[in-house]
Amino acid sequence: MSDSPSQIAHRARLASRVLAALPTRSKNDLLLDLAAELLNQKVRILNSNAADLEAARSAGLSSSKLRRLELSESSIDQLARGLEQVAALPDPVGQVTHERKMPSGLLVLRVRVPLGVVCMIYEARPGVTVDAFALCLKSGNACILKGGREAARSNQTLAGIVQDALGRHALPLDAIASISTTGRDDLAELLKLEQDIDLVIPRGGEELIRFVSSNSRIPVIQHYKGVCHIFVDRSADIDRAIPLCLAAKTSAPATCNAAECVLVHKDVAPAFLPRLAAALDSAGVEIRADQRAGAWMPASKPASESDFGREFLDLVVAVRIVDGVEQAISHIASYGSRHTEAILSKDVATIELFRAGVDASCVVVNASTRFNDGFQLGLGAEIGISTSKLHAYGPMGLEELTTTRFEVVGDYQAR
Amino acid sequence: MSDSPSQIAHRARLASRVLAALPTRSKNDLLLDLAAELLNQKVRILNSNAADLEAARSAGLSSSKLRRLELSESSIDQLARGLEQVAALPDPVGQVTHERKMPSGLLVLRVRVPLGVVCMIYEARPGVTVDAFALCLKSGNACILKGGREAARSNQTLAGIVQDALGRHALPLDAIASISTTGRDDLAELLKLEQDIDLVIPRGGEELIRFVSSNSRIPVIQHYKGVCHIFVDRSADIDRAIPLCLAAKTSAPATCNAAECVLVHKDVAPAFLPRLAAALDSAGVEIRADQRAGAWMPASKPASESDFGREFLDLVVAVRIVDGVEQAISHIASYGSRHTEAILSKDVATIELFRAGVDASCVVVNASTRFNDGFQLGLGAEIGISTSKLHAYGPMGLEELTTTRFEVVGDYQAR
Repeated sequence: MSDSPSQIAHRARLASRVLAALPTRSKNDLLLDLAAELLNQKVRILNSNAADLEAARSAGLSSSKLRRLELSESSIDQLARGLEQVAALPDPVGQVTHERKMPSGLLVLRVRVPLGVVCMIYEARPGVTVDAFALCLKSGNACILKGGREAARSNQTLAGIVQDALGRHALPLDAIASISTTGRDDLAELLKLEQDIDLVIPRGGEELIRFVSSNSRIPVIQHYKGVCHIFVDRSADIDRAIPLCLAAKTSAPATCNAAECVLVHKDVAPAFLPRLAAALDSAGVEIRADQRAGAWMPASKPASESDFGREFLDLVVAVRIVDGVEQAISHIASYGSRHTEAILSKDVATIELFRAGVDASCVVVNASTRFNDGFQLGLGAEIGISTSKLHAYGPMGLEELTTTRFEVVGDYQAR
Repeated sequence: MSDSPSQIAHRARLASRVLAALPTRSKNDLLLDLAAELLNQKVRILNSNAADLEAARSAGLSSSKLRRLELSESSIDQLARGLEQVAALPDPVGQVTHERKMPSGLLVLRVRVPLGVVCMIYEARPGVTVDAFALCLKSGNACILKGGREAARSNQTLAGIVQDALGRHALPLDAIASISTTGRDDLAELLKLEQDIDLVIPRGGEELIRFVSSNSRIPVIQHYKGVCHIFVDRSADIDRAIPLCLAAKTSAPATCNAAECVLVHKDVAPAFLPRLAAALDSAGVEIRADQRAGAWMPASKPASESDFGREFLDLVVAVRIVDGVEQAISHIASYGSRHTEAILSKDVATIELFRAGVDASCVVVNASTRFNDGFQLGLGAEIGISTSKLHAYGPMGLEELTTTRFEVVGDYQAR
């Protein structure tokens, strides 16, 4: 695109006023049509993606980045199903969240309205182009999607398919803008456009998020790393704690809700740790244990200080013995990331201490950290998991892409 | 205070963990004790305030600033009553906003928790020191209050009385920190402390708010100016529209929800404007009218372009004739401030167009703009009126000083 960021953002603002007033039916029709079209255009999408992958391989991108960049027939099927799911979700726009008749006689409503224009900044994963558009459209927002250069061809093809669908439905094409330039200059310019952009959501490495937070005049919702802990209390059910901890580490190690560190009550360590070690070993997980835990896990490596508070995003886990829930809480206060923290315990007082003492977007009692996810928590879909406390804390679904305003109806009350 | 901003903020963070777990009863007891103590200490408070006023007068502060700086016996009574009102409001902390049993068997709760540490940056008005503390305490937050230098003595006295009360109740003194230094350096340092401060609320001139928004790494909730319009449709009830418009301008001209501009449908102008002009004239309001309106308001001055979109904060009002609701909407899109916009009409379709077309934190139908106020809208109290869309849009009460987190209870579900 040769348009400047400010031109793009201003056109998105104009489109957002149209989207804010769209009936639910029109939004759903578009999403379902787009789902069908993604399946029709599989070959074209996969060809663009193959070109991105080839360029990325010759540029020497890491294998984990290549994995995130890659689309497949089944991942396109999944994108299409995601669109159908968003179409099936309730429309948050226009919902009345409060209604009150005041002593003055005024009828006061609080009504959900779209935020306006949402700017998403992300790396690799081209599927985000479709997912983010769908959530923004359903919540009545225009979106500006700034993907990474490595996914430029895939993103342009997907955004083009979205725009074709918008055109067929006589909706504004500026409901989506896909920007693929790389420069931090362009990004810095976008981040100054507070008149036309209402929210910035950066998703990517910590360095990107810090750059965005430091340079933005627009409100930013941060999705920092997830350094999630599981505290295994002395009253935990060991037989069931072992498969739970194993799955929390291994079922999707590259996700932000995977467990990175297991804190084990000293009283349960002799019975628990050898069995945990065996389970982790046989799943190919590398264990980095503090000195006390290492005594019960002979095949482990000694943990260095930097292994605590670290998001491995890989088949590596840190293990530490603690004297009790207080020490678990203070470990999490020092090393946690306000993302997801779990306790396995049957002691009510201990669970209560943990809930009160831990500051995180999701506190989990007797389940895996990996349940902190928009689908698992009943939001239906998510655009990310916020570790900022303002506006949204935890998974962000459709409602979190709206705000509420007041609507007041009177009978000529003066004041 | 000789402590650095980062030391102050870190102690506030530690205090916030204690405040987050305080029972409602302890918070209310403190607020009621503090209310009584403000009345006991009236003389001391007024003496400090007199010293601030004297210094401000010799420094040549404007009369409107002096008015905002001044405390009186009755304004202290009002502060005390405000504390009693906050004590009587429901405690938002711990409220369960959603509860859902998922197919996985997980019980998913969304629970209100305090934000943590709130930093308020304000000018003049020393009463904010007490009001902001009360709202932060009741919502479980610690507060850092950076008032203006002109109110330093008043603020220190008030903060001292708050801390004495905290001490008597064995609560952490760091629940409140009052900083009176002026330098932008100190402010810039505060705005970098994203580890220990969760929210910044600047209240003051536009220049201050822009400085804070541009320099903060912490989320900022903006309270920009209120440029509020009343659109008098051709179907408006003229007899009742006149006292309504008059009160919206004159009942408190220095507040952000006062009307700054009346937009009048051309068909109703001949009947409405001469009577409006007479009412405004007799209340001493200066009228700045566009050419068409001026023809019906002979004593008015011609409006210049800069009179539209202007927050007069004084007994001055702009008046413009429009051809219909569409032109009113586009005037508001160009000149409004997303604060409060009112329509007087009995035509349902026109009202609907206005509601859909106007982007503002509060849309008022057939009542004064001045009802956009936390008390009038049923929030019980307010810490300000946000014109940002993120987190809070409109008046901010206790709930808006909290966030929700997820609490998940399972039975060893693995994933």
